[in-house]
Amino acid sequence: MSPNWTTPAAAALRADGLRVADLDTSATPGFTGDKAAGQQLLAERTVVLSALQEKLYANGRSGDHRNVLLVLQGMDTAGKGGIVRHVIGSVDPQGVDHASFGVPTPEEQRHHYLWRIRKALPRGGQLGVFDRSHYEDVLVVRVHDLVPPAEWEPRYDEINEFERELVAEGTTIVKVAMFVSLDEQKKRLRERLQRPEKYWKFNPSDIDERAFWPQYQAAYQAMLDRTSTERAPWHVIPSDRKWYSRLAVTELLIDALTALDLHWPAAQFDVAEQLKRLETA
Amino acid sequence: MSPNWTTPAAAALRADGLRVADLDTSATPGFTGDKAAGQQLLAERTVVLSALQEKLYANGRSGDHRNVLLVLQGMDTAGKGGIVRHVIGSVDPQGVDHASFGVPTPEEQRHHYLWRIRKALPRGGQLGVFDRSHYEDVLVVRVHDLVPPAEWEPRYDEINEFERELVAEGTTIVKVAMFVSLDEQKKRLRERLQRPEKYWKFNPSDIDERAFWPQYQAAYQAMLDRTSTERAPWHVIPSDRKWYSRLAVTELLIDALTALDLHWPAAQFDVAEQLKRLETA
Repeated sequence: MSPNWTTPAAAALRADGLRVADLDTSATPGFTGDKAAGQQLLAERTVVLSALQEKLYANGRSGDHRNVLLVLQGMDTAGKGGIVRHVIGSVDPQGVDHASFGVPTPEEQRHHYLWRIRKALPRGGQLGVFDRSHYEDVLVVRVHDLVPPAEWEPRYDEINEFERELVAEGTTIVKVAMFVSLDEQKKRLRERLQRPEKYWKFNPSDIDERAFWPQYQAAYQAMLDRTSTERAPWHVIPSDRKWYSRLAVTELLIDALTALDLHWPAAQFDVAEQLKRLETA
Repeated sequence: MSPNWTTPAAAALRADGLRVADLDTSATPGFTGDKAAGQQLLAERTVVLSALQEKLYANGRSGDHRNVLLVLQGMDTAGKGGIVRHVIGSVDPQGVDHASFGVPTPEEQRHHYLWRIRKALPRGGQLGVFDRSHYEDVLVVRVHDLVPPAEWEPRYDEINEFERELVAEGTTIVKVAMFVSLDEQKKRLRERLQRPEKYWKFNPSDIDERAFWPQYQAAYQAMLDRTSTERAPWHVIPSDRKWYSRLAVTELLIDALTALDLHWPAAQFDVAEQLKRLETA
């Protein structure tokens, strides 16, 4: 571990007991280095991540059903897209299963909220990425009363049950909640409005949502309190500093992959015999 | 264009009239530079590719239905996976739709051969990648008589019809056939057998397939002759040199994206008004 990590990311970022309202979104928990040190380390660590991911993929191709699912949640501009681009972008696309979950389509709305999620679950050997997820159904849905409380209230338990099932099937779930401050969000939205090449990332409703900030904080708090479990804990990432959030998620993924104790799959054939066959083929 | 390209890749690699049996798989058509020059240029050009792909993605997010579909075909070890890792791996995973087509599953076998293909077509704004494709149904299927000639024979026309439909719907199809020599394939298979971290890429049937080399050449020839159309031409990539094939495919993709004449999507809102709203939100 880099000496700049005084506490491993997985420990420093655990959601347990954390109060969202008290979070310093500009902090860099567990990491004492500055931006330059963080960026330098990120470049090194994505190489490690990529090597581990190749092993996961190799095992998947050899019949191992295990996989890793990164669940990204966060308010607009928190940097979910940047994680995909800069962290997931460092590994082989063959082993990545990326899905993003926006406003449900009419077809999706006719189904249970987990229907579209189940369809997008990663196969064995894949690194799945959910850009937003089933947690939207206890976040935006709760904040805007899209369904009555009697309907969203049981979802926390249901989600825990669902994730228990995934873990039992061999999925390692890495849940990441990214938080920026209201001020940092304003800065990032302003940038989208000041640079024509970023207009497409902006939606006027992003501004409307700012009025619901306290309600979102409460919904995130409830999500952390009720769905951070031993088997699928939440990690809370202060995300005002993009370099930190990218480094932190990289470390969490490295951690998850390392815990799988992956080895190169053994040959399912007689190597010497195949080498001999090859020479005359 | 780099001075090392004496002919643009798209022109130098067009399949028109090419005889597969006469192909020099170690050649670098259109490119006069060496490996070091090629690798240096690849590093520069993937940055260009990534910038173009972001624009495609931005337009897709803004309602543009156009997309680009890279179709990769080639014998085992030709380097399809390396293209995905090193070329597609240079762009934002959010905008990539990757699908690989192996031996059809029992469910896929019950359907028309285009069924699984249609399900995997990229949406608007995506860069789709097919690692193998519907062309397997006139390649391995033809070589091994998996269906009678009366069944595969009409597929050439059917595929042309299918691709006409895709192009009409806004897909730019970039078809790439990668060729290595029988000797180069032996070298690459040997490497897979000599390095335990590559065992998982090897299958004894890869050696069996070498006995069918002439039949595969004939099937590839028929594919090129009958499905290289104005609207969806085949490009033939000599692939003994990995650096060349990666550079060539990068250039073909840059070409395809450039032809779309992409611009950053215009704001679908009043920028000044939103900036004003933001300041008080």
